[in-house]
Amino acid sequence: MDSQGFREAAITSIDEIINYFDTLPTRDVVSQVEPGYLRKLLPTQAPTEGEPWPSIQKDIESKIMPGITHWSHPGFHAFFPCATSYPSILGELYSSALSGACFNWICSPAVTELETIVLDWLAKALGLPQCYLSTGPTLGGGVIQGSASEAVLTAMVAAREKYLTETIPSDLTDDARDDAIALKRAKMVALATTATHSSTKKAALILGVRFITIPVTHETNYSLTAPILSQALASCRERGLEPFFLTATLGTTDTCSVDDFAGISSALSTHSNPPNTPGEVWVHVDAAYAGAALVCPSVQESTKINLIETFHSFDMNMHKWLLTNFDASCLYVRNREWFVRALTINQAVYANEASDNGLVTDYREWQIPLGRRFRSLKIWFVLRSYGIKGLQEYIERTTRIGQEFGEWIREKREMFEVLTGPSFALTVFRMVGKDEEERNERTRRLAEKINSSAKIWVTSTVLDGRYAIRFMTGVRKTEREDVERAFGIVVEKAEEVLRGEEREL
Amino acid sequence: MDSQGFREAAITSIDEIINYFDTLPTRDVVSQVEPGYLRKLLPTQAPTEGEPWPSIQKDIESKIMPGITHWSHPGFHAFFPCATSYPSILGELYSSALSGACFNWICSPAVTELETIVLDWLAKALGLPQCYLSTGPTLGGGVIQGSASEAVLTAMVAAREKYLTETIPSDLTDDARDDAIALKRAKMVALATTATHSSTKKAALILGVRFITIPVTHETNYSLTAPILSQALASCRERGLEPFFLTATLGTTDTCSVDDFAGISSALSTHSNPPNTPGEVWVHVDAAYAGAALVCPSVQESTKINLIETFHSFDMNMHKWLLTNFDASCLYVRNREWFVRALTINQAVYANEASDNGLVTDYREWQIPLGRRFRSLKIWFVLRSYGIKGLQEYIERTTRIGQEFGEWIREKREMFEVLTGPSFALTVFRMVGKDEEERNERTRRLAEKINSSAKIWVTSTVLDGRYAIRFMTGVRKTEREDVERAFGIVVEKAEEVLRGEEREL
Repeated sequence: MDSQGFREAAITSIDEIINYFDTLPTRDVVSQVEPGYLRKLLPTQAPTEGEPWPSIQKDIESKIMPGITHWSHPGFHAFFPCATSYPSILGELYSSALSGACFNWICSPAVTELETIVLDWLAKALGLPQCYLSTGPTLGGGVIQGSASEAVLTAMVAAREKYLTETIPSDLTDDARDDAIALKRAKMVALATTATHSSTKKAALILGVRFITIPVTHETNYSLTAPILSQALASCRERGLEPFFLTATLGTTDTCSVDDFAGISSALSTHSNPPNTPGEVWVHVDAAYAGAALVCPSVQESTKINLIETFHSFDMNMHKWLLTNFDASCLYVRNREWFVRALTINQAVYANEASDNGLVTDYREWQIPLGRRFRSLKIWFVLRSYGIKGLQEYIERTTRIGQEFGEWIREKREMFEVLTGPSFALTVFRMVGKDEEERNERTRRLAEKINSSAKIWVTSTVLDGRYAIRFMTGVRKTEREDVERAFGIVVEKAEEVLRGEEREL
Repeated sequence: MDSQGFREAAITSIDEIINYFDTLPTRDVVSQVEPGYLRKLLPTQAPTEGEPWPSIQKDIESKIMPGITHWSHPGFHAFFPCATSYPSILGELYSSALSGACFNWICSPAVTELETIVLDWLAKALGLPQCYLSTGPTLGGGVIQGSASEAVLTAMVAAREKYLTETIPSDLTDDARDDAIALKRAKMVALATTATHSSTKKAALILGVRFITIPVTHETNYSLTAPILSQALASCRERGLEPFFLTATLGTTDTCSVDDFAGISSALSTHSNPPNTPGEVWVHVDAAYAGAALVCPSVQESTKINLIETFHSFDMNMHKWLLTNFDASCLYVRNREWFVRALTINQAVYANEASDNGLVTDYREWQIPLGRRFRSLKIWFVLRSYGIKGLQEYIERTTRIGQEFGEWIREKREMFEVLTGPSFALTVFRMVGKDEEERNERTRRLAEKINSSAKIWVTSTVLDGRYAIRFMTGVRKTEREDVERAFGIVVEKAEEVLRGEEREL
């Protein structure tokens, strides 16, 4: 494909993409294909001779699109949003042209420096405490990771290293030190709650450290509070276990609950190794989805985000609710040396003057992989194209629609019960019924009926044994009238569930 | 930005990208900016109001480009290539428009299914044994990871789980099992050679398992052979250590050497737990760069790639030498259950019919992160646009240019000495001199002089204490005449080094 061929191909692709977004509402939100559909449509091996672009491009609509579930569809109310926007697409376009491995500063200084700068911009926009800025008093800073899972893994690796360094005497012989580390590792434990995303458990699994789940229930709205954490810490002490890591969540996966940051601080302050002393518990804040809402000052206040200054790391995904396409997980740390000390591996081939002299940031020492894409470009484009005001308006609009949906559900009390929310554009509800079994069964049927309509898509979950439907309104293309229509479908399907029961009688 | 605004912005971006590639040779290959250059050029915070696209776009050329090191520049002879191509860029373009988290099949069936299909295409094109195909006899298959580092980490997590399952009795009580695991972990060791990429060491660090480096030297051309591995295994046995993982490399970072797969098999067959018995050593083949050359049948033969059928995983980066932009690390496993068993974490919110019934692949269970991009699209476009023939021609052409460069260096025996290669388009050489010190000093100065020209970029490394220059010719835009010109620069700068010494006398 030469320059002219690319120009033509790219313009037809752009037009197809525009047409895709403009006609999204006419498509089924969830793909309706059967497992294995694509293998029947494609050859069993790559072609020997190259094919012209038009014959490739026509397969996108005919073969790929039927297998796409449309995350930007106005009827996508499942999970959390996975954003995209025109400025973000332009960022990916430039990034793919400027492809490089970019593991060192010199491998493209702009890739490193723009990342540091836009992550400082974002930290300010989110109201994070100064300590998370690259220019802050504690030598903190941000790094773009692929996902919140990688972010929590990175944080946990750093936390383990920090804990071992702080709690094992530095004057041991090598053998004695190995033994001490082995003993210590057997006692170290990472903590999370039953509402925490599974990525913390996965990180502990990868590290091979113990993992304890602290139960949180509807009694605290699935939030981790001081008494619950204190009790968990005491229980660890009794069992001879040493907590070194805790994930606190701003916007849990199931219900968008927010852990009580003040309560966590207070519980930790009475722990045997309180904050800012050797052996303190590393607190990682997982704000993967709801962190986006911190662009609104009112949310900064209500979540008390300023309190995380005694915590250690914070992560939010711009690719969920902040108009940037996957992947852009923005991970902040209060002291970047914690990452560097845990993750630096030197190899002669990567040596260079700027790195050797400590003048620059080498982000490969802040992450699991070595190479990295130019991901800050799309964040830069999004922040500039929308401006902080534009982002606030978008978050406020989608939150407001979520509030309305929650109210409509609440008003239909003969049919529905709101379990949590609306919180950050997410309402979790279920059908009413004479007992738990009937409520669960009705709600399960309702979820099935809603999703089989293919007009809207919702996710279901189970809260303390209660089957529930999550309804999220954060997608960029979702407007009030889409949610009104969706509410109509929910009610209609609920009526079907009830009529179905009558027929069975 | 509305549809019309995006169309205009995208077309000007496309034109700028075409112009970028067409004028690449006129730019300095390595960025010449000083550390911190960009902070001086940008505001300290994101704008409040959104900005129009033209004011954003003009900053790319004026502020970003000076900080870019051009990995597609014909004078880029450093590290390994990090590819891009027009079809690949189109793949990223569609992928960013179809953004979704895609952790389950139902989240976009096409994302999962196309990945399985194109990775089977690629496995066939590379001549991998049948066992690495999704349709093969051992239920293997491929998955796209972000980087070779993530691939080796994923493989090592699976290997650890497999080893523990196979070597710890299944009838223990929970407490006894915990103790047995703790004891076992203290003895488990991951192996690699001094020529293996640092990502294996980093993976062991993350897992918290022991890591032993097996020395390889110029005597075996930096290749791991049967006697060396046998000795390492014996030494582990003597120390009471249990090797569970080994990285074998096809194309090492420093010199592109290839480990002796037949020798590794033979050494392992006399190990206490030989291949295909419980507690066998998991062998991961890191073919990150040179794996691309397997598209040529002659390379399949010379590297004896068919022998890896008793190994466990294989990884190559299409984003290095196979015209696909970062990231596209293609990881294959002989039995996908090894990944799934080690990495599955169930959470109610991700439950769905197709997954629950085991009808589909959920790639989140084959990787560290949960969400994933639609990365197979660009691989599909590249394989179809170039065809297998086109890829072979490209690999053969860049390899041939590398051969010629190596010959030119070898012919200038009064000045240079080839240390390794040309191998896979990489020649490693140094300057001659009266002793090691002089040779090292001259070569160090030469590397500095070459790179400060900014016309070409090379990497230096240290082999058994010998300072050396790596010269790679794999970049798509690099033609024979570019390498001729580069050789002229190398000679000219070497002459400068020698003249400089005369002046000092």
